[in-house]
Amino acid sequence: MKRIAESTVRRLSLYLSFLEDTERRGLSTISSDELARLGGTTSAQVRKDLSLFGSFGKRGLGYAVPELSEKLREILGLGRDWKVAIVGAGKIGAALARYRGFAERGFHVAGVYDSDDAKIGKRWESLTVRSISELEKDSSKHGYDIAVVATPAESTPAVVKQVVRAGIKAILNFAPVQLSVPSDVTVRNVNMAMELEGLSFALTNRGE
Amino acid sequence: MKRIAESTVRRLSLYLSFLEDTERRGLSTISSDELARLGGTTSAQVRKDLSLFGSFGKRGLGYAVPELSEKLREILGLGRDWKVAIVGAGKIGAALARYRGFAERGFHVAGVYDSDDAKIGKRWESLTVRSISELEKDSSKHGYDIAVVATPAESTPAVVKQVVRAGIKAILNFAPVQLSVPSDVTVRNVNMAMELEGLSFALTNRGE
Repeated sequence: MKRIAESTVRRLSLYLSFLEDTERRGLSTISSDELARLGGTTSAQVRKDLSLFGSFGKRGLGYAVPELSEKLREILGLGRDWKVAIVGAGKIGAALARYRGFAERGFHVAGVYDSDDAKIGKRWESLTVRSISELEKDSSKHGYDIAVVATPAESTPAVVKQVVRAGIKAILNFAPVQLSVPSDVTVRNVNMAMELEGLSFALTNRGE
Repeated sequence: MKRIAESTVRRLSLYLSFLEDTERRGLSTISSDELARLGGTTSAQVRKDLSLFGSFGKRGLGYAVPELSEKLREILGLGRDWKVAIVGAGKIGAALARYRGFAERGFHVAGVYDSDDAKIGKRWESLTVRSISELEKDSSKHGYDIAVVATPAESTPAVVKQVVRAGIKAILNFAPVQLSVPSDVTVRNVNMAMELEGLSFALTNRGE
């Protein structure tokens, strides 16, 4: 498969979420115009994005909603089960482990790690918090696919080294740190404080 | 002030979060090397970013932590109070209204809006959910700075039109939709499902 830009993958996610809404509303077709409007893009871009993965839709009839959503779920790897290790047994990790949308999408939390002796050994839903020093050994046994990193900024670089050493190739990063990882590791960041500060910066500096 | 790239603003947020960590640990100076390491960048980049806003740090001594964090808070507009309208009286909005980091950073929820008759009029912490049709009038009275948009994908484009018409210039968007807004409106997106799908896409398609 050709190398697909991150911006394209983000649009595929958006299209899927509209298709699933459309399915719930009981409609069986959607036009590229409508997908484009919801995605804030053009119908030409929608057709271009989807053509990367095959031939969809009938001229004048639009896309068949169930078929296209099934195909997008497959492209996005959502039919599979992914094993997730949470690193940093704090509030964010706990919220994710309980978050239903996480498990529904096939993301299963199979281990929780921390470096804090006060947390190691604690029960955590159906899991027990383990020492971060066990991550590499455990990963070779369980085959973790994704690490959710939710550690304080200061300890994050060291933690990420251990995640990489454990052979985990995908990281969802909640720490307010830019991670440096080898090129075969994919990182996505969620940092709400940073988004808010971006807005307050824009408000403070507009019109100057 | 020169036009500052979004990536620069994101790094400023990162630097500030390290400086605040450093402050809490009781240290009074930090080097550009250390800021660079935590920010996943180079010390030359750190110096370049900070030089956009003035002259900081002493050669060989590093940056004075309290002064630099105060300056960054000012640059990022964090000394001020921002009035926030939450649009979409669902779980995300409720979590934000209760989220302490939100208020601590000066973001004050001053109104909650929905289009659902079943929600309008309900008490919501110290606020009452109001009809989205009141947003424009209320905004001219309260002067909302930021709208948090947390509506279903389908209704989001119409909602955002009303936010823009109300003169609000900054949007934190939790809806899985790409917003189209005039160029003087700043949008930041938080979409965890999309980040997860990006990871599962990368895992599914790697090495092909």
